[in-house]
Amino acid sequence: MAQKLFLLPGDGIGTEIMKEVEKVIAWLNSQGETDFSFDSGLVGGCAYDAHGEAISEEDMQKALAADAVIFGAVGGPKWDKVPYEKRPEAGLLRLRKDLKLFANLRPAICYPALADASSLKRELIEGLDILIVRELTGGVYFGEPKTITDLGNGQKRAIDTQVYETYEIDRIVRVAMDLARTRKNKVHSADKKNVMKSGVLWDEVAQAVAKDYPDVEFHHILADNAAMQLVRNPKQFDVMVTDNLFGDILSDAAAMLTGSLGMLPSASLGAPDAVTGKRKALYEPVHGSAPDIAGTGVANPIAMLASFAMALRYSFNLVALADRLEAAISSVLADGLRTGDIAQDNRKTVGTEEMGAAILKK
Amino acid sequence: MAQKLFLLPGDGIGTEIMKEVEKVIAWLNSQGETDFSFDSGLVGGCAYDAHGEAISEEDMQKALAADAVIFGAVGGPKWDKVPYEKRPEAGLLRLRKDLKLFANLRPAICYPALADASSLKRELIEGLDILIVRELTGGVYFGEPKTITDLGNGQKRAIDTQVYETYEIDRIVRVAMDLARTRKNKVHSADKKNVMKSGVLWDEVAQAVAKDYPDVEFHHILADNAAMQLVRNPKQFDVMVTDNLFGDILSDAAAMLTGSLGMLPSASLGAPDAVTGKRKALYEPVHGSAPDIAGTGVANPIAMLASFAMALRYSFNLVALADRLEAAISSVLADGLRTGDIAQDNRKTVGTEEMGAAILKK
Ligand SMILES: CC(C)[C@H](C(=O)O)[C@@H](O)C(=O)O
Ligand SMILES: CC(C)[C@H](C(=O)O)[C@@H](O)C(=O)O
Repeated sequence: MAQKLFLLPGDGIGTEIMKEVEKVIAWLNSQGETDFSFDSGLVGGCAYDAHGEAISEEDMQKALAADAVIFGAVGGPKWDKVPYEKRPEAGLLRLRKDLKLFANLRPAICYPALADASSLKRELIEGLDILIVRELTGGVYFGEPKTITDLGNGQKRAIDTQVYETYEIDRIVRVAMDLARTRKNKVHSADKKNVMKSGVLWDEVAQAVAKDYPDVEFHHILADNAAMQLVRNPKQFDVMVTDNLFGDILSDAAAMLTGSLGMLPSASLGAPDAVTGKRKALYEPVHGSAPDIAGTGVANPIAMLASFAMALRYSFNLVALADRLEAAISSVLADGLRTGDIAQDNRKTVGTEEMGAAILKK
Repeated sequence: MAQKLFLLPGDGIGTEIMKEVEKVIAWLNSQGETDFSFDSGLVGGCAYDAHGEAISEEDMQKALAADAVIFGAVGGPKWDKVPYEKRPEAGLLRLRKDLKLFANLRPAICYPALADASSLKRELIEGLDILIVRELTGGVYFGEPKTITDLGNGQKRAIDTQVYETYEIDRIVRVAMDLARTRKNKVHSADKKNVMKSGVLWDEVAQAVAKDYPDVEFHHILADNAAMQLVRNPKQFDVMVTDNLFGDILSDAAAMLTGSLGMLPSASLGAPDAVTGKRKALYEPVHGSAPDIAGTGVANPIAMLASFAMALRYSFNLVALADRLEAAISSVLADGLRTGDIAQDNRKTVGTEEMGAAILKK
């Protein structure tokens, strides 16, 4: 039976880079390597323009029914004045929440060919391979109350609520621990337990989970110190697990360190179904919708293609194919091909399609 | 009438580095430059050991009565198991709250002599001069409810609450704007308005305040993007204003970028009194208590002395003296003197006292 992909290109450069994924899917199917069926929908600003919502019910149903959702990017200045509940990001947040994608895996890898693009000194960044495991369905993103109240006299009060329960922390720390076992066996758990009660609970649960993984080296780190240490000496880290908000900030900082932002994919995973073992999943590049270059054909499709490689790996267990796609990306970079965002002297600068085609050819 | 300083060295290296401040005060008084009286108290772990509280009522009264509080650092593994309400950090948080020190000024400056100590490439960091203005008495640090509830069945729920009211945002953004006018006239306001209601209100108020400062260039930036941009190209920033939690993380990242962490001071200021114009203030180094090197006489006293220079400037309007102290620090560094944390080949490595003495001599 065909495996169902649901493509949500979104806004800005999302459409352009998703086209390159479609080409890879078509090619894989034509080679008999895979049997993917796929459908596309709207999310973000374009969905708002079409339906008045950041994602329609119909597309939500398709996302829920798919074996994997491949997501581009959302947002742009065009939708700055859209009501809060309908803003482009709401579509992404609803997908995360309704698909129960609690585990967000964000690798920060420095591609050897791009080490010089980092703002950090080469020796600090070369060979970097960190995995940030971010909790994605809890914390201040979704906690209630989340309100703005008019107090009169020109005063308003805004409230957001950070909420975590034991089971939410337990399951995400286990994901980090399991992944560490496939890597360098080291986990840092970041929180602000010195000022936040959610940090106190986070650390209590993380320490307890760590006892079940005596073979994994476990460290607590304060989130502010984590930000510092990422800048000072990123290679000290293997896996870092943290909450939704700290994960947002720390993973972006880590991604930027590598100098390979346009190259970095992410996976958002749900829990495996107790019977079928299948898990819902959404794959998306770490970069945003880059409205400034949208439509000009210069966007870098690598993070999008690398996200699709993660889908092959995590959703379809097509490990060999994922390896091949990732190797093709590295190899094209080693050959000196660059999109504008990573342009270098003495390297060939190409557009989205040419980069996609070169990778496909490999 | 003598001006009252209250010294709170705190834990770890706090005591050692504060001694160097005492020497500077004694010297200034002996020269007739100043008429400071000073008293010392306990805060953090040492206060807990002595009184069972992170700061005693008596010392709180002294802090409230002082013209300026000079603070070292708190915390250490020794107090890891102390109850949450009595942990070392609680002393600092109480000082901030009860003295109403809502404006935390954290300069991230790259000392020319130390540009090579940064993990960033020299050209990205040389001449860096950012000022992070962090809201310090609101947000998730103090919002209620802030609880851990036992739900039974081994489950707990932890809650922290992020709360901001219009006036809190208004006054801190004005501080940032006023300071920008004495610098490069540019302010970035960082929040997560795409997921947080407090971010929506933050931006609404900041944009309104910006209208009162048509001469200051004003930009909104998402906090995750701010973390990225700090890593990518820190020199694009002049003043960055943000909330308590984002300020904690972003200012630490910015401080680490400079490679001059042991050099960076901070000032926490209250509102000027309507009648006297005086404002409560606390000055503290950005670095922590460094329990690993405490008592060995190798700690770098520069951030502590630079914090005292900020006190001369902001609390006592002794601008010329502040300039002289800051110039002495730069000059000693230019001469090649280094403490262990910033040791370099071909530079002389000295201890806390020797560094303090060299600066004093200048
Ligand atoms: C678009 C936005 C809601 C999102 C987030 O804050 O989670 C983005 O920054 C991310 O990291 O995926
Ligand atoms: C010690 C701690 C409570 C404090 C904070 O989180 O504010 C520290 O990290 C700081 O930045 O001053």
